[in-house]
Amino acid sequence: MKSMATRFIFLCFSLFSSTTISFAKATSRFPSSILRPEKLSLSTENELYKAKYFTQTLDHFNYHPKSYETFQQRYLINDTSWGGAEKNAPIFVYTGNEGNIEWFAQNTGFVYEIAPRFEALIVFIEHRFYGESMPFGGDKKVAYKNTSTLGYLSSTQALADYATLIIDLKKNLSAPDSPVVVFGGSYGGSQVRSESENCYKVIKGSWQQIEDTANQPGGLDLLRKSFRICNNSSVAGSLAGWLETALIYTPMTDYPTPSNFLNPLPAYPVKQMCKAIDDPTGGNDTFAKLYGAANVYYNYSGDATCFDLDDNSDPHGLSGWTWQACTEMIMPTDGSNKESIFPASEWDYNDLASFCEAYFNVEPRPTWITTEFGGHDINRVLKRFGSNIIFFNGLRDPWSGGGVLKNISESIIAITAKEGAHHVDLRFSTSEDPGWLKDVRRREVNIITEWLSQYYHSLTP
Amino acid sequence: MKSMATRFIFLCFSLFSSTTISFAKATSRFPSSILRPEKLSLSTENELYKAKYFTQTLDHFNYHPKSYETFQQRYLINDTSWGGAEKNAPIFVYTGNEGNIEWFAQNTGFVYEIAPRFEALIVFIEHRFYGESMPFGGDKKVAYKNTSTLGYLSSTQALADYATLIIDLKKNLSAPDSPVVVFGGSYGGSQVRSESENCYKVIKGSWQQIEDTANQPGGLDLLRKSFRICNNSSVAGSLAGWLETALIYTPMTDYPTPSNFLNPLPAYPVKQMCKAIDDPTGGNDTFAKLYGAANVYYNYSGDATCFDLDDNSDPHGLSGWTWQACTEMIMPTDGSNKESIFPASEWDYNDLASFCEAYFNVEPRPTWITTEFGGHDINRVLKRFGSNIIFFNGLRDPWSGGGVLKNISESIIAITAKEGAHHVDLRFSTSEDPGWLKDVRRREVNIITEWLSQYYHSLTP
Repeated sequence: MKSMATRFIFLCFSLFSSTTISFAKATSRFPSSILRPEKLSLSTENELYKAKYFTQTLDHFNYHPKSYETFQQRYLINDTSWGGAEKNAPIFVYTGNEGNIEWFAQNTGFVYEIAPRFEALIVFIEHRFYGESMPFGGDKKVAYKNTSTLGYLSSTQALADYATLIIDLKKNLSAPDSPVVVFGGSYGGSQVRSESENCYKVIKGSWQQIEDTANQPGGLDLLRKSFRICNNSSVAGSLAGWLETALIYTPMTDYPTPSNFLNPLPAYPVKQMCKAIDDPTGGNDTFAKLYGAANVYYNYSGDATCFDLDDNSDPHGLSGWTWQACTEMIMPTDGSNKESIFPASEWDYNDLASFCEAYFNVEPRPTWITTEFGGHDINRVLKRFGSNIIFFNGLRDPWSGGGVLKNISESIIAITAKEGAHHVDLRFSTSEDPGWLKDVRRREVNIITEWLSQYYHSLTP
Repeated sequence: MKSMATRFIFLCFSLFSSTTISFAKATSRFPSSILRPEKLSLSTENELYKAKYFTQTLDHFNYHPKSYETFQQRYLINDTSWGGAEKNAPIFVYTGNEGNIEWFAQNTGFVYEIAPRFEALIVFIEHRFYGESMPFGGDKKVAYKNTSTLGYLSSTQALADYATLIIDLKKNLSAPDSPVVVFGGSYGGSQVRSESENCYKVIKGSWQQIEDTANQPGGLDLLRKSFRICNNSSVAGSLAGWLETALIYTPMTDYPTPSNFLNPLPAYPVKQMCKAIDDPTGGNDTFAKLYGAANVYYNYSGDATCFDLDDNSDPHGLSGWTWQACTEMIMPTDGSNKESIFPASEWDYNDLASFCEAYFNVEPRPTWITTEFGGHDINRVLKRFGSNIIFFNGLRDPWSGGGVLKNISESIIAITAKEGAHHVDLRFSTSEDPGWLKDVRRREVNIITEWLSQYYHSLTP
């Protein structure tokens, strides 16, 4: 499948907002990995949250018979720090993105770590059609069967789910005046040039070499051997994509400490990748260098003996993103041959439309998202119709180019970190966190504190 | 039909807003009346607008097969004053409410009168399922047939229609930077006590008298004769509603000059009604007094010889409101016996639900609108998530109690007029307009001028 994905990322904290949205990118390729946060201040997942279920409306915007169907939406809750309704103590809500909500909870330690000082209730809400939150009876096969069921997977419905669940939860807790702080994160672009000019040049030059080799007699066998591709796996047409995935997701998760978000990785994995490429002992064997780099991403544990490029396992349940990318999340991404480390590519709407027609029998609506959310000039729109949002972007994150990097108003604040990767601020802290990361988190906490104090002030007559 | 209607009104002008919404109330009873604005600066309706049609998406929020159906949405356009795209001249958009858009255009002269000084393009967009904007082939009978078709009549869909049409129009006009000023108006309560204490007491006392008379032998005939009810019309159970309608809609349209919005009326019709009731020559004949008052509303032209209380004609095409009141526009309205001129009534959700089940086979969603638009504390929500809105309320308008009467922020401004009726400011001006009305309009024009100037300033780098 041609990558139709995009590189629009933003990460935001939003206070009092019911319109926060996280755009997220997921490819179809995620290697299996064990879900385990690299550090928990709590010893087991059971202590992180309890799973609950909310009877959610299938269709918030129409009133035909099917609209009245409901489904069970999963949310995770932790009330150990909550100060309670009588204090109007805050509710921290993470609005889920395109995957199993437990995975996000386990990788969003920041919320757990700051909850006690705010006496906050923690709620992670799963996005419809992901994880266990499956309409049409809870069975993913049924929910994903065809357009008449999958048709209810849309961003506006998901936002309405969150608003409905939060309002019902506040009602049940008798906490109408508790402020809600919304957290969300997401990702999706690439550079390693800042790490090493040689590394950049080797990668950039390799695509043509791979293609030339594949077209030579015996070339596929050479590639299979060079990259340790399993015997049962295809090579032609798959290898470049497999390498691209590593080259996109490693910078995206270029954390300063060892981590396991998409795959288990060492601290600063981009540095490790480029080390493999720049290693003078490697001589001029481009394929050996590339293999070493890919190993950082695909085989940090060292357990893999060969790689199956056809592996479509989806441990985090991200497959629904393909549907979203075929309906409303239409994000044109061109690759320029001049600067990009990737092969040149030209985005063609018709290619996307043909794929979506064949795969889902659905026609994309390329202008809807910008109509709904005002994305053509998000600064102008947000300035007048939003408040109390923090956008954090790590500039190492390849996709930070799509983020809000400058303040939009007094209360819509952009925080950037030169050395940061995507959503690094949201992760559990570790004893090895660098000073800049601690500073980012401290600043975020201070802003949330100030906004909450303004809110409580506005409650007193 | 029991009145399930409400009395929530507001009227607003909104600049740059794609989220303005007008809540409107319409009863099932509107007497036939000829559509004719009382004063046009232009000689014929043909000069007011040209009708055009836009191919609109049936369902903006889902992607199942039916969602991809389209319908023809009507809009009215007048470009005689437009300064053009090269000047970034503004676009004035009236977002239609629950009726034929031509009726609203003909009663919204303000927009026409101020357009020249702003060099504005004028666009009136019809609300889906009203007027000619009928999904499912354009035939109202088909569109209103059952829940599977009527289900697409919802406020969020209507707002998405407006956003989609406006964005497409700007694109076609190559006017991406033209500011859009949105106008809307609506209504829905009642007092005549400020006019005359005696008038108030007579009306308040009459309900019991009508009921007592109806229960006496020969009482219905007496009522029929007293109120000149046609022989083919029912009396019992209909008379009180017929009088209530007059007592709601006359104060609502208590304009300072003769008008014809709902019905043809004299200047200050409430004064005329109370004159009929207070008239000392009327003696103690309550029914004769009430008849005189009802005549002001129902028979100002003097043409009617008898009244048909069963008349359900709907000249402005407002019938879809019943569906909206059965699905999302759930607005509890109690009548207190202590102060209200109307008989005491207690609002009961179950009554509404039973009616809607029997009539439409649909279940109301009483919490959706406040979830979607934040209505439980609109001040708190708008302050943080809106800007550049003027809310005008005439305090004579019985339903102004539901309006925004105080400024919410520096750019969300409430204007009230002690002697104003609902949306009086939006009407065509006349040579007899009182000073306070001229002042209101002048202030509105000044605010729009200032906001547009801020906008143009923000366009220059």
